[in-house]
Amino acid sequence: MKSRATGAEDKVAALRCVRCGAAYAEGEVPYTCPPCGLEGVLDVEYRPGPLEGLAARLRADPERSIWRYLDVLPVRGTAGRPGLHVGWTPVYDFPVLARRMGLGGLRVKDEGRQPTASFKDRASAVGVTKALDLGYRQIACASTGNAASSLAGMAANTGLEATIFVPATAPEAKVAQLRAFGARVLLVEAPYEAAWALCQEAVEAFGWYNRNAAVNPYLVEGKKTCGLEIAEQCSSDPPDWVAVSVGDGCTVAGVGKGMEEMRRLGVWTGAPRLLAVQAAGAAPLAAAAARGLEDCEPWPEPRTAADSINCGEPRNGRKALRAVRASGGRWVTVEDAAIFDAARDLAAATGVFAEPAAAAAYAGVVCARARGWLTARDRVLVVSTGNGLKDVAGAARAAPPARRVAPRLEAVREALAHPGLAQA
Amino acid sequence: MKSRATGAEDKVAALRCVRCGAAYAEGEVPYTCPPCGLEGVLDVEYRPGPLEGLAARLRADPERSIWRYLDVLPVRGTAGRPGLHVGWTPVYDFPVLARRMGLGGLRVKDEGRQPTASFKDRASAVGVTKALDLGYRQIACASTGNAASSLAGMAANTGLEATIFVPATAPEAKVAQLRAFGARVLLVEAPYEAAWALCQEAVEAFGWYNRNAAVNPYLVEGKKTCGLEIAEQCSSDPPDWVAVSVGDGCTVAGVGKGMEEMRRLGVWTGAPRLLAVQAAGAAPLAAAAARGLEDCEPWPEPRTAADSINCGEPRNGRKALRAVRASGGRWVTVEDAAIFDAARDLAAATGVFAEPAAAAAYAGVVCARARGWLTARDRVLVVSTGNGLKDVAGAARAAPPARRVAPRLEAVREALAHPGLAQA
Repeated sequence: MKSRATGAEDKVAALRCVRCGAAYAEGEVPYTCPPCGLEGVLDVEYRPGPLEGLAARLRADPERSIWRYLDVLPVRGTAGRPGLHVGWTPVYDFPVLARRMGLGGLRVKDEGRQPTASFKDRASAVGVTKALDLGYRQIACASTGNAASSLAGMAANTGLEATIFVPATAPEAKVAQLRAFGARVLLVEAPYEAAWALCQEAVEAFGWYNRNAAVNPYLVEGKKTCGLEIAEQCSSDPPDWVAVSVGDGCTVAGVGKGMEEMRRLGVWTGAPRLLAVQAAGAAPLAAAAARGLEDCEPWPEPRTAADSINCGEPRNGRKALRAVRASGGRWVTVEDAAIFDAARDLAAATGVFAEPAAAAAYAGVVCARARGWLTARDRVLVVSTGNGLKDVAGAARAAPPARRVAPRLEAVREALAHPGLAQA
Repeated sequence: MKSRATGAEDKVAALRCVRCGAAYAEGEVPYTCPPCGLEGVLDVEYRPGPLEGLAARLRADPERSIWRYLDVLPVRGTAGRPGLHVGWTPVYDFPVLARRMGLGGLRVKDEGRQPTASFKDRASAVGVTKALDLGYRQIACASTGNAASSLAGMAANTGLEATIFVPATAPEAKVAQLRAFGARVLLVEAPYEAAWALCQEAVEAFGWYNRNAAVNPYLVEGKKTCGLEIAEQCSSDPPDWVAVSVGDGCTVAGVGKGMEEMRRLGVWTGAPRLLAVQAAGAAPLAAAAARGLEDCEPWPEPRTAADSINCGEPRNGRKALRAVRASGGRWVTVEDAAIFDAARDLAAATGVFAEPAAAAAYAGVVCARARGWLTARDRVLVVSTGNGLKDVAGAARAAPPARRVAPRLEAVREALAHPGLAQA
């Protein structure tokens, strides 16, 4: 196979297939391992050279975005990269809530503060930069969710043309977010799987860059920046556990990889265990972990209201299972009702408004504490992966109802005295 | 009138009535000027002492939030303040778009990146801190919009109990944002004005703190931090104009005050003119400015889809008119259609997703350029006051439609060749 110059050869040692272990040079293959096909997701390995002295360089670097990590990202970035501010999202400490939950500590990293309000901006920023590195003018993905709106936003910012394949049944509000950024949105008259397959076919036929995290090896590197940041932001007090909700598996794998890289580079001594949280209605990876498998089996009819993790056939399952196991972590599943309760409790106790899939991570912490998997000594960091504004109705589903009152002070007084009565 | 200790006496020289000019000591009156009533909005004036050497202190301060400005904020903040990260929102430079628009420069300050995704977090953060300074446990406001969700979020974060008065006709999605944070939401069976009046009555009767920007003199000081930041972020290259959309008037007055304070303190030499933008269907202040008035007359039946600036009786009109005049600025009105076009163009050209009221500021720039009020030399900064996720349908209203395709490559090819045909 003929290699294509990417400009990242000086940093990337190899792209290694998670299934067969074969190693490819940077630029040798565009997406997955050819013999293994879609199951042969590649993992980026770095050369030691550019990493030497990184810890010291980071301490001196005033940049507060994912681009402070350019030395450990598989892009050159000189042909352009998004100017939107991605990364360095806040980590909040909630000691009162931790005590109430019977934990040694509770921190929340709020990814809802990203440019398009979700964690996925980390991946899209790197994907778009890679596309520009490689000289593409067009980029595509199949998604109705945060990956798509994130790609649409980053593409708009950099002048790339984005085409997004969604099933024609996608909710209008989700589609509107994509249209807003001027992306070309194709409503495919078929289920999601067919829309995904059509996207694969189209990027091939029209020579577009492929931003599907299921096949693109570089996106997880963008997601890794969340783990890199956790290490720097918590270096003086590393958490014992980091809780992340899991759909495809790419996010938890990325967070784990980032934290681990920072440990090897001497940036911190933390080695948090990953608490990987799936919705009970879409839990192929938790099921595989329970059976000690290396990879998961498809989950027929995945069903959870936390749409960002409603995934029955995770493409990054191997990476996720390995990352959680390597960390000494655990898998936990949570019912949708517990997710809605978690969204309500987190917002009301902290002011962090999380979309259901993000609140699932917090729900997993509640569940793991109740089961005794987490103890009163454990200090936990929750990654809240998306903003509640992405799905206001879902995020507020378990919140206390509003109350109708007549326009008189007496009615207000009555409502205060009997908060449970006569709700709207 | 007996003074109440607030802890900010060492910073606040006086609270001066914008109508009659009477000066009150900090803590002497809680809200407006008693003789002037609701029209007697107070303006906070600072003592020179705490400001000495501020420019040098700011240069050395690593804090990147509104709290770096504590010396010029009317709060003590030792009894607690929100831990959510407020302020220091990004300023993006879009030189390509500026050239396309025929401007010397175009920057956007994205307030959609605030904790609850709007500019209002600046005011709520200061309001909540003041409430805590004064020992209140309860805080209230009347609003269905960004002020309310912002208050709900900041109150949740600090443990204050928030009560929010909204007309019973408020859209469910807006109410859900308030409920999500655990606020007590009262749906008043009456129009907005009656809900507002009931809130005024209730804070008095129940001893709550009042976060209505119409009467609370401290909120505009929070809004001022946007102007303080613009001065610091653009000190090496001050814009000629700063465009802000205007409803009540408090925001544009705050931004202007902040920029002016920084000039007096020697932080920058900028003196941008304010481009104050109102929706054509709710433009009492633009009308008053056109007639050279000091204050505005009520606008019967204000009507714009940019709901955050749909205000017929601005309570901070005097402050706004003065700030714009003092800056040598201008007022401009824009039709809703131009606002929707602006939201689409801004998102597609920059990746900044603005709610309609925020896009109105950009629409005002487009309009002012077309009229020749802005020239090819002018460098403009647009304050985008809220995230498009607050009103996705509105923000995407003029965006290109999605296109239905059959699940076949040929259908995709056809859609690419004839983008205008067969749209959904």
